Amino acid sequence: MRVADLETPVPVIDLDRVEHNLAKMQAYCDSHGLQLRPHIKTHKIPAFAQRQLALGAGGITCQKLGEAEVMADAGLDDIFISYPLIGPVKAQRLADLSRRAKVRVGIDNRLALDTIGEAARASNHTIGVLVEFDSGNKRTGVTSVAEALELARRVQQTPGLRFDGLMTYPSTAATARFVAEARQEFEKAGIPISVVSGGGTPNAWAAHEIAGLTEVRVGTYIYHDRATVGAGAASLDECAFHLHVTVISRPTEDRAVIDAGSKSLSSDQLDPSFGKGYGLILGYEDAVIERLNEEHGIVDVSRCATRPVVGERLRIVPNHVCVVSNLHDEVAVSRGGELIEMWPVAARGKTR
Amino acid sequence: MRVADLETPVPVIDLDRVEHNLAKMQAYCDSHGLQLRPHIKTHKIPAFAQRQLALGAGGITCQKLGEAEVMADAGLDDIFISYPLIGPVKAQRLADLSRRAKVRVGIDNRLALDTIGEAARASNHTIGVLVEFDSGNKRTGVTSVAEALELARRVQQTPGLRFDGLMTYPSTAATARFVAEARQEFEKAGIPISVVSGGGTPNAWAAHEIAGLTEVRVGTYIYHDRATVGAGAASLDECAFHLHVTVISRPTEDRAVIDAGSKSLSSDQLDPSFGKGYGLILGYEDAVIERLNEEHGIVDVSRCATRPVVGERLRIVPNHVCVVSNLHDEVAVSRGGELIEMWPVAARGKTR
Repeated sequence: MRVADLETPVPVIDLDRVEHNLAKMQAYCDSHGLQLRPHIKTHKIPAFAQRQLALGAGGITCQKLGEAEVMADAGLDDIFISYPLIGPVKAQRLADLSRRAKVRVGIDNRLALDTIGEAARASNHTIGVLVEFDSGNKRTGVTSVAEALELARRVQQTPGLRFDGLMTYPSTAATARFVAEARQEFEKAGIPISVVSGGGTPNAWAAHEIAGLTEVRVGTYIYHDRATVGAGAASLDECAFHLHVTVISRPTEDRAVIDAGSKSLSSDQLDPSFGKGYGLILGYEDAVIERLNEEHGIVDVSRCATRPVVGERLRIVPNHVCVVSNLHDEVAVSRGGELIEMWPVAARGKTR
Repeated sequence: MRVADLETPVPVIDLDRVEHNLAKMQAYCDSHGLQLRPHIKTHKIPAFAQRQLALGAGGITCQKLGEAEVMADAGLDDIFISYPLIGPVKAQRLADLSRRAKVRVGIDNRLALDTIGEAARASNHTIGVLVEFDSGNKRTGVTSVAEALELARRVQQTPGLRFDGLMTYPSTAATARFVAEARQEFEKAGIPISVVSGGGTPNAWAAHEIAGLTEVRVGTYIYHDRATVGAGAASLDECAFHLHVTVISRPTEDRAVIDAGSKSLSSDQLDPSFGKGYGLILGYEDAVIERLNEEHGIVDVSRCATRPVVGERLRIVPNHVCVVSNLHDEVAVSRGGELIEMWPVAARGKTR
């Protein structure tokens, strides 16, 4: 079956492009002596995680515990959860996970540390810990080396936990400065930093320029999207995930409506310097998906030389593929336009 | 079990508030002689659709065929699909649906009409059609009475189809003007308009002021959200859907991070005149969820007199509850803070 014959809206994965993207990032990391630890948040599909490992990745990264459990169920056995887990239930689930996989977790506060420590002790398994620091993103992460050192000391003093190093997101110039200072202070304190884990596809190709980084966590690179293309991290031909849609209405000369809105494409916007609208329509690059309702995409086709007709099928490169992938229960995996199989997005919606 | 003991992030439905909201809208429609045809796109849960019918609704509305199929599987047997269905596969599915439910569909173009007509003839079932017109929203719908009349004539001439009337979204003052003109022209043409279906929760309470309207399609009213509160259609106390989240990090005095981002709360923004940020945190109304990453909500707490601590549980009123509901596989149905049951969001992700 041709993917062009599937009902829309449907996310279509080009397996050759996926393979190219996975191999390219692995080769980059290998050539610079960086450990690649792919983030599965983008694809959420165990078979892709297994392929990433087969190509040389050193374990995977998950954001949520529920994602990690799905991956462990599929046999993935080296998992980093780059997210603060709070509360005894999640700590217990993490400890349970550590019985069947090598588990590491990121923390940036004492409560996360203490609850995880308790659960780890009770389970008689050791959980590795990276202390998260902020390198300018202003999200999670401690903001000073002194805080990082204090947490690292406490990890070392907590039976059941093992201090493995530091993590941040995304990797930036500030990352190198923080790491340089941390290496000095941690050395004085006699605490070895074995891992420094950074992340982010947009600036992944510059990871080797960040002194001190040992590990790269990237997710989007498997599919790429308008944002990573806009950031110069990929070409449009490397985008491996397209949403196929149909024009369902042409109410006026200048307007087309497609069968995908915020429930299929997400409301994620794009840096205006990267382009306009809620996705790029291939073949109609001058069209702008200017508005999304839940199931409608309203497209301004006024600048198009030729214009799509009702019933026409379009292919869209999403602004931010990670959230789009998460909206769909399954993806069409294809090669050369032929459908190979529909794959469930197994870790979709595992928010807890 | 208390819903406060459920792991976060978790959507929690207050059943008493749902009941209040459903009864209030039904009473409003009853008192004005309007048919209520609730849109299930918000809740996507058959049991709620059945409750809406039990309270007096005259059938349900679905946006996508896949939603309608889920509802029909659960025994719902009067379904309006307010969405143009394009192509022979969807037309055939619609015809199949018409064997087990009374089916009506909205169209605004000939292609939709012709393909549905063919499938209806082949199945020997009659499908009701409403012609969609645009009352200012600039989405789908014909833009003139002449076009509506032309489509209505073609529906009448198509065996297997029955012309039932007109539909639009949302209901506005322009709706009444269009309908008045249409009634004149259709009467001249000898085509009766039995149904005029309008929609939208924000302006639902003014539906009786729109001359000619016979049917109200509303979805959000079951839960309400910041947008319908902002529009004056509900009070905050009528919001029946809260996302329970946990503070997972407090990296600085002014910043809190919660365990819900765009994959739990959606990136849907709010009319700035209705409020700031990606949701309202109850008890911390001066906090602003100023940024969402996929699994992180970054909250500015600088204007809060008291500030939440790591591990604290928060309740969020979403900006736009329909897309939030669609992100979660299940919801916690509760009464008085006690969990009754986890319910699957059965028609979630049925985009096709």
